[in-house]
Amino acid sequence: MKKIEDFKEYLKKISYLGNIRGLVSWDLETKAPENAIESRSKSMAAISELIFNMTVSKEMEEFINYFSSEEIFNTLSEEDKKLVKLEKKEFEKSKKLPVDYIMRMAEATSRAQPAWAEARKKSDFAIFQPHLEKLLGLAKEYTEYIGYNENKYDVFLDEFEPGMKTEDVKKTIETLKNELVPFIQKILDSQNKPNKSLLHGNFEKSKQEELSYKVLKAMNYDFNSGRLDEAAHPFTLRVSPGDVRITTRYREDDFTDSLYSTVHEAGHALYELGLPEKFNELALCSAASYAVHESQSRFWENLVGRNFSFLKFLYSDIKDLFPKYKDISLEEFYKAINFVDRTPIRVDADEVTYNLHIMLRFEIEEALINDRIKVEDLPKVWNEKMKEYVGYEPKNDAEGVLQDVHWSHGSFGYFPSYMIGNLISAQLYYKMLEDIPNFEELLEKGETKPMLDWMRKNVHQEGKLLEPQDLVKKITGNNIDSSCFVKYVKEKYSKIYEI
Amino acid sequence: MKKIEDFKEYLKKISYLGNIRGLVSWDLETKAPENAIESRSKSMAAISELIFNMTVSKEMEEFINYFSSEEIFNTLSEEDKKLVKLEKKEFEKSKKLPVDYIMRMAEATSRAQPAWAEARKKSDFAIFQPHLEKLLGLAKEYTEYIGYNENKYDVFLDEFEPGMKTEDVKKTIETLKNELVPFIQKILDSQNKPNKSLLHGNFEKSKQEELSYKVLKAMNYDFNSGRLDEAAHPFTLRVSPGDVRITTRYREDDFTDSLYSTVHEAGHALYELGLPEKFNELALCSAASYAVHESQSRFWENLVGRNFSFLKFLYSDIKDLFPKYKDISLEEFYKAINFVDRTPIRVDADEVTYNLHIMLRFEIEEALINDRIKVEDLPKVWNEKMKEYVGYEPKNDAEGVLQDVHWSHGSFGYFPSYMIGNLISAQLYYKMLEDIPNFEELLEKGETKPMLDWMRKNVHQEGKLLEPQDLVKKITGNNIDSSCFVKYVKEKYSKIYEI
Repeated sequence: MKKIEDFKEYLKKISYLGNIRGLVSWDLETKAPENAIESRSKSMAAISELIFNMTVSKEMEEFINYFSSEEIFNTLSEEDKKLVKLEKKEFEKSKKLPVDYIMRMAEATSRAQPAWAEARKKSDFAIFQPHLEKLLGLAKEYTEYIGYNENKYDVFLDEFEPGMKTEDVKKTIETLKNELVPFIQKILDSQNKPNKSLLHGNFEKSKQEELSYKVLKAMNYDFNSGRLDEAAHPFTLRVSPGDVRITTRYREDDFTDSLYSTVHEAGHALYELGLPEKFNELALCSAASYAVHESQSRFWENLVGRNFSFLKFLYSDIKDLFPKYKDISLEEFYKAINFVDRTPIRVDADEVTYNLHIMLRFEIEEALINDRIKVEDLPKVWNEKMKEYVGYEPKNDAEGVLQDVHWSHGSFGYFPSYMIGNLISAQLYYKMLEDIPNFEELLEKGETKPMLDWMRKNVHQEGKLLEPQDLVKKITGNNIDSSCFVKYVKEKYSKIYEI
Repeated sequence: MKKIEDFKEYLKKISYLGNIRGLVSWDLETKAPENAIESRSKSMAAISELIFNMTVSKEMEEFINYFSSEEIFNTLSEEDKKLVKLEKKEFEKSKKLPVDYIMRMAEATSRAQPAWAEARKKSDFAIFQPHLEKLLGLAKEYTEYIGYNENKYDVFLDEFEPGMKTEDVKKTIETLKNELVPFIQKILDSQNKPNKSLLHGNFEKSKQEELSYKVLKAMNYDFNSGRLDEAAHPFTLRVSPGDVRITTRYREDDFTDSLYSTVHEAGHALYELGLPEKFNELALCSAASYAVHESQSRFWENLVGRNFSFLKFLYSDIKDLFPKYKDISLEEFYKAINFVDRTPIRVDADEVTYNLHIMLRFEIEEALINDRIKVEDLPKVWNEKMKEYVGYEPKNDAEGVLQDVHWSHGSFGYFPSYMIGNLISAQLYYKMLEDIPNFEELLEKGETKPMLDWMRKNVHQEGKLLEPQDLVKKITGNNIDSSCFVKYVKEKYSKIYEI
């Protein structure tokens, strides 16, 4: 066997073990009985240790050194070059971190999580504050190990959006904010408000489940390569190639929660299922970035799922399942689904205001990492920005600064991906319209296969060969920017709100 | 930390990884989508290799040698002594097997399994014959590596029933056969045959599921430490302490199949859930033997589940769920449940004829291993014995020699545990009656907690401290023998068949 094949076999073995770890997580979130948790956390620790040891082993080091040497590297195919680069980057990062740092980090996050949960429950930031200070200190320490040129925040951004810089995000946000904030003001000033209350009622779980299966079928989600389960916080998990599972949650009083959770997660799953098989179990068989991943879930959730033509297709099923809609017109229903409002919670936000929630998180994170604000001032800063951007003043810490779990995991830099994903979804959408001019007509019939095929070909089949900026440029001819998204929301919501 | 604690930590780590492997199996049998299989088999191989390496490592060897040295061994507690003995036995066995043997065995079984499946499908033993010859050769080779005194078959028996000898099984079978065969003849000659056909009908799966949950509740199965799922071949799996899962299967035309599968598997699960917590993740936290395990499942399935008083308790639920029983008396139903017949398939056999199916398997296995019969003669030998013991002549290989999967796994020596388990269940039953004289009264009310507590105290809490013979002796004062079982079936079936 050629040495590159040995290397790939080694990497695949790590992947096979990683897949099992994924399965354990899935089980814990969906199926495992309560009393399983204690032993399973030991299992997770044991297998994680084995995996980590393999990623920093002498054997791995030899592979990396061998294939990175100019002489050998130049003989590799383009794809193998990219693989070696990705593995080298990960390996070097792992090597840069002192073992005691990893242990301090693990300890700090394991303490911070219950503290955050308690703080949120009691709506008291002071409980979480010392933990966040500790985690912020560790995050800054991390940037020193990894190294950076301009902005410490680049270190985190790069983990989610390879190649992207803090300055890019700032510019994107600036133009987006300038367009969105006044537009949202117009929407909220409009007298033509949809009647959102018609979405509330009492919806049997089994009927909601039926609707989820119907919409998954319409999306061509393959049940031979996945399954749908219930989880408190919906997620998608690629256990392995040919096994990408989604979860949703059912609220008795609002069936749209499960419907759009299902569609959103299925969007993620379709991406994972469309990744190039030839790279199975290798790093190239991954999403280009978190934002590109989010562009897929958001495309299906919003640009398809909240589209008038698609709802026209779905509405007869909805009426069959939930008779209360028998006398409610599709137009009313569509408008209710697309209600825009100033709300405190990011995950409940509509597609127009959602990005504003992200902006303030990015600005706060970036300022924290660069010591321009202090942790103790967070509730104040948060609430001021919420008022300025979203127009809502949080009533307490629970519906303000404490709402997201990310920081309690010591995770910084993830939020921008949500927003960039929204922007990319709109860029892909307009490009798709050029290639599939009968987009609306197809959606009316529930035919989404051409859209999926388009994504497969343009996005999924690229795997992780390109960085997100290069991928978007290759597909659309443009850099990632907010113009398409702004165009999309203006077109759509001007009609709905008659402005 | 004391060195014994280090040793236990090492063993626990192996257990934590083993638990994950168990979870992967569970998932494959119950939840995994079809396309998961290919990658998951690689995951299984990867983690199995890691586990195996840990069980034969230098570190393990050092622990074993250290604690087996007389000087150190004598300082250990009785429980730790037993642990060291168990681990030493396993370690030495692993060390005795040449690596090339393990690989030849793995290859032979991976070829034999599809061949067996095809042979069974086509009802053609010739397809399976060369594979079985190969596996038998490997099994005999195995006995040479492990070593034996009197009978090669002891090697296999010891893996399932530690300490038990082939001669013991032969004697047990002889007395059991002498009693059972004529008694079954009397049953079948009786004119008072139950009406078995009343068990057939059309039973909604969701109602059967409901019945399974009801009976599990009555058995005090703890859903915080387990769950019920569906599988083609029902099984119980201890993923870890606090997580013992059971599976059942639903046949639309016969609800008793799911009912008794559930009760049988729950019997296994209650044992696993009752093992001593202080030994969690160590070998002492295991069943005493496969037969003792089977004694638990059979106790709940037959001595409780097919008991008149318990059925009296359950029958109102059955009537509520399946209205066809509204006009059928409990007596008729009870007799139908306990119908005795000459049937070809072991897993469908009633509790009286079941042991005869086992006897012939044991006799054939033992003769094969000791070269007293040839593989090519198996169909003939099988059918002759079936006619002699069960009184049924198989119509073809599929309902004869090809019905069981065990040999295609290269597994010999397992069958006796089924029979011995039945015998033990009756021995425990009569001892329990002494301690719980109102047994029937309690069952009528569905109160099974006292029986479970009795099993917990007498059987479960012993873990693997004792060998099966010593355990039964400790509890009942007697060796394992067939007298209680014979007494039980004669008492019960003389009444049912009025003989």
